[in-house]
Amino acid sequence: MKLQLALDTQSLEESLALVAKVQDCVDIIEIGTPFILKEGNRPVTAMKKAFPQLLVLADTKIMDGGAFEASAAFAAGADLVTVCAVAYDATILGVIEAAKKAGKQVLVDMIATKDIVNRAKEIDAMGADYLCCHTAFDIQSTGASPLAELKLLNKAIKNGKSAVAGGVKLATIDEIVEEGTQIVVVGGAIANAPDPAAMARAIKERMR
Amino acid sequence: MKLQLALDTQSLEESLALVAKVQDCVDIIEIGTPFILKEGNRPVTAMKKAFPQLLVLADTKIMDGGAFEASAAFAAGADLVTVCAVAYDATILGVIEAAKKAGKQVLVDMIATKDIVNRAKEIDAMGADYLCCHTAFDIQSTGASPLAELKLLNKAIKNGKSAVAGGVKLATIDEIVEEGTQIVVVGGAIANAPDPAAMARAIKERMR
Repeated sequence: MKLQLALDTQSLEESLALVAKVQDCVDIIEIGTPFILKEGNRPVTAMKKAFPQLLVLADTKIMDGGAFEASAAFAAGADLVTVCAVAYDATILGVIEAAKKAGKQVLVDMIATKDIVNRAKEIDAMGADYLCCHTAFDIQSTGASPLAELKLLNKAIKNGKSAVAGGVKLATIDEIVEEGTQIVVVGGAIANAPDPAAMARAIKERMR
Repeated sequence: MKLQLALDTQSLEESLALVAKVQDCVDIIEIGTPFILKEGNRPVTAMKKAFPQLLVLADTKIMDGGAFEASAAFAAGADLVTVCAVAYDATILGVIEAAKKAGKQVLVDMIATKDIVNRAKEIDAMGADYLCCHTAFDIQSTGASPLAELKLLNKAIKNGKSAVAGGVKLATIDEIVEEGTQIVVVGGAIANAPDPAAMARAIKERMR
């Protein structure tokens, strides 16, 4: 089970300092969508250069131009890119094809997907590496959590692996570990902790 | 009727040179999604500084963190941002609220929306400035064109305005003008023309 640290609102300098502190406890560094919208692929390249032993995920949330946009992110140093499950099949297939060409991987973000079970089955059949249930930041205040969707996802997937994102924290990690998944994405719970290294270690220890 | 030039695959230098050539014929400069994924909001700021008389649209295709991501793009100089119609309502509402606070505007991209009429009605009621039917790049090779969706959109919208994107070119501009819309997005047909200024002028003349 891999721990993915999402970097969303930090500067590149702050992000590099944060990852230096937690690098022994995390497996994947996510350059979050707001970070990419602000800085482009520069933080992807910088993070991969600074921490070549870690995987870097570019949270591109691709909605069109699948092959083109994925190839650009891989060329910049990303090991994984994301595409939205609500995009057209042609877009998702373009991203998967670009990943295969580059020897890299694809995480399909199920955010805002209405029929998660049937869409997951379709995407799983396309050959996606990871399918990620994702409680959007914008709906977390309603009390929504990704555990129920993770259970649906785990039942629907046969070929790929599941991942989970959206407000995951120390208090909710045990139920996720019990359900089982391959990637757990944690953002603010680590980045905004008084001691990020201790928090990352505490979460990672529950995952073992 | 406004002409929006989409800049997707050019470098910032090439883009600035291209806009210098066509600035008298275009109304809105779109910093396309692949351009943002590569360069972040830097081209948004640079384009607004170089051409303050033109509107700049940041094609952020927001899927989450609506208020945060939109505010960041507006702060960087964007006059308009885009959010996906397939995002959660809370995300779209966050973008609209951020736009109102900033005195800027929102274009909702209908890309990959299944029930375009009902979703357009919902989004129109939320107070979006523009709703844009968009034939994805990844499905243009199937022969799909945005005209049929534009007709549906124009019937569904009561408060906002319509826009149209996806492979629009000189050969298809007349049928769009005849149907009527407020923003016509053109990318490759101008950017890749042997004489971009002449092509932009030819398209703009059909729109008058």
